[in-house]
Formats: sequence, C-alpha cells, structure tokens
Amino acid sequence: MLTPPSEAAQAGLAQPLLAPQSVAIVGQSNDAAKTAGRPLKYLRQAGYGGRIYPINAHRETVLGERAWPSLAALPEAPDHVYIVTSTEAAVEAVEECGRLGVKIATVLADGFTEAGAAGLAHVARLRAVTAHSGLRIVGPSSLGVVNLRAKVMLTANAAFDEHPLPVGRIFAASHSGGMIGALLSRGAARGIAFAGLVSVGNEVDLSLGEICAATLADPAIAGYMLFLESLRHADALRAFALAAAQCDKPILAYKLGRSLEARDLAVSHTGALAGEDDVAEAFFTDCGIARVDTLDALIEGLPLLERVPMAKIAARLPRVGVVTTTAGGATMAVDPLAMRGVGIEPPSAETLARLAAAGIAVKPARLIDLTLAGTRYESMKAALDVLVTAPEFDLVLAVVGSSARFHSDLAVKPIIDCAGSAKPIAAYLVPDAPTALAALSQAGVPNFRTPEACADAIAAALRRRAPRLLAAPVQSAGSRKGTWLDELETYGLLDRLGIARAPAIAIEADVTHAPALPFPYPVAVKALAAGIAHKTDIGGVALGVFDQNGLLAAIRQIRANVAERRPGTAVDRVLVQPMVSGLGEVLIGYRVDCDVGPIVMVAVGGVFTEIYRDRSLRLAPVDLSIAHEMIAQVRGLATLGGYRGGPAGDLAALAQAIVALSRLAVMEGPTVLEAEINPLIVRPAPLGVVAVDALVKLIV
Amino acid sequence: MLTPPSEAAQAGLAQPLLAPQSVAIVGQSNDAAKTAGRPLKYLRQAGYGGRIYPINAHRETVLGERAWPSLAALPEAPDHVYIVTSTEAAVEAVEECGRLGVKIATVLADGFTEAGAAGLAHVARLRAVTAHSGLRIVGPSSLGVVNLRAKVMLTANAAFDEHPLPVGRIFAASHSGGMIGALLSRGAARGIAFAGLVSVGNEVDLSLGEICAATLADPAIAGYMLFLESLRHADALRAFALAAAQCDKPILAYKLGRSLEARDLAVSHTGALAGEDDVAEAFFTDCGIARVDTLDALIEGLPLLERVPMAKIAARLPRVGVVTTTAGGATMAVDPLAMRGVGIEPPSAETLARLAAAGIAVKPARLIDLTLAGTRYESMKAALDVLVTAPEFDLVLAVVGSSARFHSDLAVKPIIDCAGSAKPIAAYLVPDAPTALAALSQAGVPNFRTPEACADAIAAALRRRAPRLLAAPVQSAGSRKGTWLDELETYGLLDRLGIARAPAIAIEADVTHAPALPFPYPVAVKALAAGIAHKTDIGGVALGVFDQNGLLAAIRQIRANVAERRPGTAVDRVLVQPMVSGLGEVLIGYRVDCDVGPIVMVAVGGVFTEIYRDRSLRLAPVDLSIAHEMIAQVRGLATLGGYRGGPAGDLAALAQAIVALSRLAVMEGPTVLEAEINPLIVRPAPLGVVAVDALVKLIV
Repeated sequence: MLTPPSEAAQAGLAQPLLAPQSVAIVGQSNDAAKTAGRPLKYLRQAGYGGRIYPINAHRETVLGERAWPSLAALPEAPDHVYIVTSTEAAVEAVEECGRLGVKIATVLADGFTEAGAAGLAHVARLRAVTAHSGLRIVGPSSLGVVNLRAKVMLTANAAFDEHPLPVGRIFAASHSGGMIGALLSRGAARGIAFAGLVSVGNEVDLSLGEICAATLADPAIAGYMLFLESLRHADALRAFALAAAQCDKPILAYKLGRSLEARDLAVSHTGALAGEDDVAEAFFTDCGIARVDTLDALIEGLPLLERVPMAKIAARLPRVGVVTTTAGGATMAVDPLAMRGVGIEPPSAETLARLAAAGIAVKPARLIDLTLAGTRYESMKAALDVLVTAPEFDLVLAVVGSSARFHSDLAVKPIIDCAGSAKPIAAYLVPDAPTALAALSQAGVPNFRTPEACADAIAAALRRRAPRLLAAPVQSAGSRKGTWLDELETYGLLDRLGIARAPAIAIEADVTHAPALPFPYPVAVKALAAGIAHKTDIGGVALGVFDQNGLLAAIRQIRANVAERRPGTAVDRVLVQPMVSGLGEVLIGYRVDCDVGPIVMVAVGGVFTEIYRDRSLRLAPVDLSIAHEMIAQVRGLATLGGYRGGPAGDLAALAQAIVALSRLAVMEGPTVLEAEINPLIVRPAPLGVVAVDALVKLIV
Repeated sequence: MLTPPSEAAQAGLAQPLLAPQSVAIVGQSNDAAKTAGRPLKYLRQAGYGGRIYPINAHRETVLGERAWPSLAALPEAPDHVYIVTSTEAAVEAVEECGRLGVKIATVLADGFTEAGAAGLAHVARLRAVTAHSGLRIVGPSSLGVVNLRAKVMLTANAAFDEHPLPVGRIFAASHSGGMIGALLSRGAARGIAFAGLVSVGNEVDLSLGEICAATLADPAIAGYMLFLESLRHADALRAFALAAAQCDKPILAYKLGRSLEARDLAVSHTGALAGEDDVAEAFFTDCGIARVDTLDALIEGLPLLERVPMAKIAARLPRVGVVTTTAGGATMAVDPLAMRGVGIEPPSAETLARLAAAGIAVKPARLIDLTLAGTRYESMKAALDVLVTAPEFDLVLAVVGSSARFHSDLAVKPIIDCAGSAKPIAAYLVPDAPTALAALSQAGVPNFRTPEACADAIAAALRRRAPRLLAAPVQSAGSRKGTWLDELETYGLLDRLGIARAPAIAIEADVTHAPALPFPYPVAVKALAAGIAHKTDIGGVALGVFDQNGLLAAIRQIRANVAERRPGTAVDRVLVQPMVSGLGEVLIGYRVDCDVGPIVMVAVGGVFTEIYRDRSLRLAPVDLSIAHEMIAQVRGLATLGGYRGGPAGDLAALAQAIVALSRLAVMEGPTVLEAEINPLIVRPAPLGVVAVDALVKLIV
C-alpha cells in the first residue's frame, strides 16, 4: 500500500492500452444496435487506422466484414482485445489472451467482484492469467477504452455513437462505465473535449491509478477528470497523483458516497467496501487531488484548476474578489463559496482608491458592484485591471448579468481581454448566454453554467495543495487481526510517543486495604483489562473517589458491574489515577485505514463526536502546521480557542500530541493498527494536555 | 404583520399592472442600445396592442415615434407608467403620476432605500404620493414588469431583446432585476416558459407578495417562481402563500443568504435587514412554500411541484424509489437526496416479488438497477409499472444512462408512457440528451439537467406541507423597545404557561444569617436583577452550594463579582434554587421576529448551540405534532432519545413545553417580545422537564 506501482510494470502499458496497432473484438455482434455490436461500428465510424479483428464463432461476417472464429485463428496476437461476451466466455477469452501473448484485454462482462462466490472464482481465474503471462486486464465491467486522437474506440457505451467527436487535452477515468458517455457528451455541449476516456470497471488487475499513470508521459494530456464510486487501490491512485503533481498536470475528482445511502450502493454495485467519506476527503487533500461535489464542476472545473497554482499550505482562507453587473446574480455564487469556506472580503482601502482613480464608484462592500458605474466595457475592464493586481485576492470572479445574452461586447469582452493576467479569473454569466460562454472558452477563460458549479470549482481549486510526501509507507491493515493492549500498556506507548498522560497505578482487585497512592484524592478508578473498549458502558469506571474507603468500595462495585454486564471478563486489577480537569475534552485517534493506510484524527470528545461528525483527518504522519490546520477544521474546538472571552486552551500542546500520535505510522516496533486517546484533557495554555484514557490495538 | 393585504387594495391591481390598456415610458431614450431605450423597442418588437406614450422632454421623436414632452401633455392618464429616468426626475414623475390619476408607476432608478438619508427622503416623497392618491408603485430599482401573453414588455432588462418569447404558465417574481432575464432565458433553453415576470425592486409600496397575490385569479397562471434576496414584507408573502395554496398553485422559492456573507450583501445592496436564514426556512415551511438551494432546481422544479401533493404533516421521511440503467449515474442523484433527508430504501418484499414476476431480476438494494435486465423498453416499462403502484414510495425517480442520448426509444420512452400515472415520476438523464429531455417535457414528465438540481427539487417537493393557519396574528416587533423581567417574574410567566420550573426563593442580598430553605441543599445561587442576560459570564452564579455558610459566602462572592464586572448593576437580591439534574439540557426560545413575527425554537443547550447552529424553528404557536417534529430535527437531541442504549429523556414533556412556550403568541396580557428557557433540564421519562433559568422581555 502507498508504494508506487513498479515503473517496469508501467513501461509499455500506454501503447497497447491506448494506441494499439491492432485490436480484436471478441464477441462482436452483427447487430450494431446491440451493445456487443457497437465497438466495430465505432472504430470504423471514427476511422481507426490499425488492424481490426472482429471475432464471432457463429458467423462468417459481422457488419459486412470478415469475422474470425477465435483469437487463436488470428494471424497475430493483437495489442488490445476488447471482450464483449458474457461472463464465462469472457473468462475463457482472457485465458486465451494470456496464452497468445496479447498485451491488454478489456472485459465488458459483469459477474465478478460483485457476484459472490461464483464471481470470486471468476476473478481468481483472471488473476491466474495475469500472474503467469504478460497480459494486463482492464475491467471487468468495463465499458471500454477510448483514445480520441488515435481513433481507438474500444467502447460499448451508447453515447459514443457520433462522428466526429471533439478531441481535447483531458483524460477521463471512471469507475462507472455509464459516466464516460456522460462526461463526453456533457463536455461536448460545453466545448470541453477529451484526449481519452476509460471505464476502469472493477479493477481486478489494472487500477484507475495505474491506467492514468501510464498516460502521464503524454504531452497532449493536460489534466485528469476522475469519477470515483469509492476509494479503491488508493496506493496506485496516490502514486499517480504524486507523479501528476510533478508533471504539473492537475487532477479533478468527483466521488460518490457523501451519504451513507450512496456508500451502501457502492457496496452492492461493485462489491467494494466503501470507507467513510471524510477519510477519502483527507486522502484527496494530502494527494493534491481537487475534489468537487457537483457533476457540472467536474466537467467545467479543469480549465480553472490548470490556472490556479497549488498552495504548499494554507496560511489563511483563500479569498476571491467578485466584480459584477448584477448584485443578486453574483450573490448566488457568493453564497455557496462562503459555505465552502472561501472568503469574500471587501477590497482593501488601496484597491478601493485605485478603483476610484479609475473612475469606478463602488461601495466598500464584499462585491465590486458596477450597477452604479453602468454595464459598460470601460467600467468592467477598468475594474478587472485593478482587481487582477490587487494582492488581497487569490482569484477574481466576474459575474455578468443580462447583457451577456445579446451584448457580450459590454461586460464579457473585458473579461476576455484580461484573460492573460497572471491572477486566475473565472466567469459566471447569469442569463443563458451560449455565445458569450463559447467566446470565453475560446479565449481560455474558465467559465461556469451555474453559480453552484462555479463556487464548487473555485473552492476546490483554491483549497488544492501540493501533495505531501509521507515518510516510510506502512502497509494497509487489510483484514489483519489485532490485539488490544490494556490501559497501562497503552500508557507505556504514550510515554514513548511523548504524549502527557495522567499518572496511573495498578492495584490488585482483591486488596482488602487500600494502598497509599503517589497522588492525592479524589481519584478515578477503572477496570484494567485489555479489550474493554467502553468501560463506562459496563460500569467499569468510578470517578471522583474521595478516600481509601471509597476506593475499596469502588473496586468492589466495578468488579460486580463487569461480572454482571460482561460475564467472562475478569477484573483482576484496577487502574487508579488522579482526577484531571481542564477546559475541554478532545478525542485524538490513529488507525491504519483499510483504504488509505495510516490516518490521524482529531475530534470533539464526548457524546457529540458521533452526532455531528465534527472531526478532521489526515494521512499520517503530520507535522505541526497540519496539526494546527486540523484543529482549526473542527468547529467544536472553537470552544477551546478563547471562546466568548473565556480562557484559551493549550492548542499548541494539542497540536504536538496530534503530531506525536501520528508518528505511530513511522515508529519502530510493533505495528499499531488503532490508537484512540479519549478523552485528552486540554488545559488552559500553557498547562498542556493530558491523556486520561486510551486504547491501542497492535497487529497480531 | 401577518394580516392579509386588504382585498379592496388588491381589487383592480392586476389589470393596470399586468394588462394595461395604455402605457407611458418616462425618460424613453432615442438610443435602443441604452437601458432607457429598451422598453419602447421591446413593446414594439412584441407587438403590444395598447396605447404607448414615449415621454422625452428633449426630443420630438424617439426611435422614430412621436415623443411627448411630459405626462401632463398626454391625452389620457395611462394605466401603467414605466419611469426610466434618474432618481430625482423619477421622484418628480411619480408625483406627477399621483396628480394625474395614473394607477401604476414602475420605477427603474436606484437611490432610495439603499442610499442613506438622501435615499430615505426620496422614499418619503414616494410614500406621500401613494398615501394621497390611488397610485401604486412597483420598485424603485425595478427592471420592470412583463406579461408575455398580453405582450406588455415594460422592462429594461437586456435579456428580453428577442422575439418571439415563449409564453407559459409560470409567474416569476424577483427581488433582483437581473434575475428576471436569467429565469426567462435559462427557462427558454429548457422549454420552461412564463406567463409573466416582475422585478419588484425595493418594494417601497407594492411588495412581492401583493403583486403575486394580484395574479392569483388568473387561470392561465399555474405556479410561482420566486427569487428572494431576503425575507421582506413577510406578512404579504404569507397571505399570498395561503391564498395560493387554496387555489392549488404551487410556489417554488430560491432565497439568498445561507451564508453570513450573502446576508451582508443583501444589506448593502438593498438596505434591507437580512434575518437569519433558518428563520426564513421555518417561514417557508409553515407557509407551504417549497424552497430550493440551486438555481437549476428553481428553474426546473415547478413541473414536479405541480404533481406532488402537499402533505398535511410528515408521518415519516419521504421515500423515493429509484430505477436506473446506470448505477453510478443514479447514485449521483441518490447522494444529494439522502443528504437532504429523503429516504432511498430498497423495495418491499412484495414489490421485489412483483418485479420478479414481471421478469425483472434485481438485487434487494436501494436502487432498482436494470443493468442485468438490460437497457430495453420492456425492462424499464415493466419496472416503472410496478414502482408507480408500490405503496412504499412517494415518488419514482428514473435515471437513464448513455442510451438516452441517441436511443430514447429504449429507456426514455417507457417513462413517457408512464407519464399519466397517479404517482409523481421525475427523470434525470445522465448524458447530454437534449432531444430526450424535450420529449419528456413535451409529455409532461418533470426532468432535470443535473443530479443536484434533481435531488434539490425532489426534496423540496416532498418536504412541502400545507400552510398552517396560525391563531390570532401578532404584530412584528419591528424596532420597538422591550423591558426585561427578573428571573422570579419570569418564573411567574412560566407558571402561567404551565411549564415546570425549579422552586425558587428570593433572599435579600444583605442577610447576615442564611434563612431556612423550603428545599434541601445543595442549591444554586444567582444574582436576581432584571436584564442580566449572561449571569455566568459576570460571576453571578454559584452552583452546588452545600450549606448555610456556603450560601452566605456565595452571596458575598456574587455581589463582589457583579460589582467588579458589571459596575452600576446592583445585586439587591439573590435567587436560591435546588440543584436539578437530568439527562441533558435543552434551550427553548420564543421571540417576535422582525421579519416573520412570533417564532418558537428548540436547540441543544450549552456551548455548542451557537457553534453547530443545530436548532429547529417554527412560526408560533405550534401543536404537539409540530413540536415533536422540531425535536426530531435537532440532531444533538438524539442524545435524549435513548442514545446508545442509555435511558430516554422525557421528550413528550419537552414537546409540551415547546407548545406551551409557543402559546405566548396568542396569550392575553402583556406582549412578550422574547423568552428563553436555558437550560430546560430534560429528565428521564416520565419525570418531565424543569426550567432552571429563563429570561423574558416584554414590550414597553
């Protein structure tokens, strides 16, 4: 996990995959209206220049061409074979591809990872082929591979049935086969065109990340558009993202699964496990992948992403300057921008003075509203000239009202005339204005159809960071088993990490006289046994014990409670600690996630953690600046920052504890699968933080 | 406030406003490219059949027609005058309209409510005219009034410069003048057409609600599309909404201001105060107005809204059945639906059996995925036939993949063939498929361009309720002053309302011997003085006081704290109460909102109330069923419902307390402007709830 795919494995992949000299269609139908009839029709329609071998065991000809009876009967081993038969025949065809030395087989059929035991048996047969031959497989459940420049149309997607198709500089990869048709056609309607598109299917061999990585050397590809159903093969995706960042090729992703319901569907649809969405979000952030929430932003966002440089780390919230001829229309974009944490601030005094000097009368408000100045070329041009050189803005958004529909010379042309400025400009036209939009696209000005897609893409672009180079990779937990440490052992680990924790001593549970304690009463008393995750729920904790008699009573009560509520768990020892109080309670956690590997988390402690899902995650390890950023992301932690004039908690110490916990990812010694400090008491600065309970699970 | 506009005032408004026999354009320019040149051009272009009087004091002719020197020089008082001059001249023209007996003047100029003292002086002059004549004013800052059937094109919006414009059955009203051009043109691009559109401007006289209400009797208008910048003149809007519900004409609204930044803009743009967004949301809910969050859903949503009946009250979450030929594409719509609280549940066993009997093999998942069945007319038709009669679904969403682009006979035609079913059907086509979309629209099947707009409109339609008829209306607080009760007086009010509260006695703060208490220690001691809103913040509270000496010490400390932190506030008495504990703390509140009048609120108590904005509001008064619905809406209150196997709080008593507090809206006696019980302690059922602190502000 998180290791880059072998370069040797990548070498030579791009050519047979995307620019094959020869292709075969196994199962090509004679009926071009059928799914299995489409590939040959599309290849001919597009004018593919390589050799095409339609294979149909039951016919002499298909669609008027010679049909071959089998792969074995061909005069050569084709570079790339698209198998459009049903499942069982597809497995046999893959096996034949392996025997014949075919380089790539793309498989349309379903009935594999999502199809229970029978499906997994099919998968095993495919894997046996790739293990023992040079064959690489795309799919199964792949609607195909398309290279529009080379006219390679190995697809059965119904939306590709037109000619000519526009050729562009974007490479699209999708878990959903249907979506390659949606991206192609919706893009075409907006002047957004593709170099290639691939439906990666269930990725039993080649993963989405590997396929995209194989195209990175292609200078004709400027950026990547990903449609993800879940976060699978995150290691390859991460390796691709890092390499793409080095080539300065942006990646824009849409991922299903914000809701539990959608994650459920991903499971039943593909058989993949769907991890929590904010884990995926953290992964994208740390990989420099911009993520959008709307389909339109996915389709329209790359031109903007290409123009917005990746930040190393956000020193402050990104800020957008908005100039408009329609305040109401512009506010439609401001609302979703602000909800996404992008600042819409008034211009600086200096910028206002420069606007005034340019003859633009505006109020010192969050919008540069040209209503008073009038919808004229000169006003918009002068305002843009000032804004693109105003240092307080990271990006300028121009919103044009009704004039854009028939009079683009007034307020759209000035945007086009500023297209060359160093600062990114985005445009949103409030009316339906296809001509003006096309002119903006032609001039290279990123533009958006809806205020929501506009805000979504701007926020994604401004939030994107350079990918972090993580320290030594750690293997994913997968399904490996773990073993719990008891609390005292856990504290030993915290001591190694340098995370302050409450003093603790263990006492035999059958004592008849309370021993002297190395700290004063009142104390907390807890059952001490590995694997009791929710001690409180089974009566395993007594708090605020005031004296020796109380201590003995507490021990008796804890033993009785646990015996009753968790029969079979013996409480031989208890842990005694001083009571610790502070300004608030925080949960910090670490785990080796099954998708993305080691992650670290900070969240509000207590009962609301689960209800509000108010937490921040990152790939581990993190440094102090990222830890502070995580703290700032958790809304509930605002109460610890000197809320309403109250004392401020020691957030510096909290950040240090997050960093320390995240170092489990690179620590020598036994591999920690999971660690949770809950609660970590945050005291007023500079008194630090103190762990008062913790759980750790080691790999077996 | 909340009184319906006088019917007499409405009578006769529609004709001069929307179907005038004669119109004048004051300030009509000779240059049709200028804003002031457009109205005459548009009227002629459209072929308006009434009498047109262009008025220009400086020219004999404008755009080749006779120009009149003044309104006074006309042979008649026109029904409707559009004044497109600058501010000062516009005020004078309005005054002349008043003198001449004109019925409607629409004013384009700005410089009124948003323009400080000078602007307010202008407003006063307009109001003087309406007070002393029969003139009604639209605007100022109105881009005009358009009736497409009657070819009344009294607008200066640049997007209306085409002919012919499609005529439809929707009436649009907008605070933003630019938006009428956006709605018209974006609608036209989707086959959504309008009966009329009006830019209501700053509503110094006719409000948006009054204007819409004036059109309700028009049988050619089927529904309303509102673009709101803030919630102004809520009384008229509510009266309109109630009347519209009686006529069975749905209202779909988009309102700016989810974010603080956007609310800020509304203030600087129009001079209107922008209330909190969830107050507006509660208002819409209680008025039966469906609210969407996206521009596309506003434009595309009415056909769906017309087909979804208004629920009386939601007995359960609304449920959508989803059938698709592309699981990935459909999940794009499921994700935002689920995030909006719409349930996407698997079909019932009976429905699955019926599907199987119809030859449709599907998994028992949340989607009816026809991938296995194949993209064929028969599969989709059979599946739809089952789903539209499946009682577990309130609406059926059909999502069609790539075939929709060129082969609408396969999976789009069956949707069209089910258009007549009693259950609402919505369609989302994943690829760009303009021909299929047009066919769906033609057949009356609500359809959507994006998964986000689709989900937004479906959720808004399914959540819409019949408007509540509130008891006796109460005046809005406006800017009226209030006076605070002290806590003991406040408890008197709670006693009248029947809300349980902790026992309390007042003690003189200069006692030297603690009196006997009618309840046991430990007790809480609080400064007792009207108008101390945050007693804790100034050291005015001592909790857990154990005995008489502690009580005296607490009183001394409280007096010292308040003297130091709030000099000038004398603490002559303290309130003593027993300590009360429960499962959790809730805040319930009531206030007469400046926009919408009396509202009642429930929220999580404590420090997180403000951070998570996790609260539920309704217009007051409410009944028990609505109170329970409010409790269910507050996520944090899940902790009181038997969370994680813990004891359940007395939510029935909480609901009763909400109802009781909301009755302040209709209680005899002094008018309460604001009341807050914080905290209200919720005890385990059936032990009730207990108010342990409260604040009340009466009108002066």
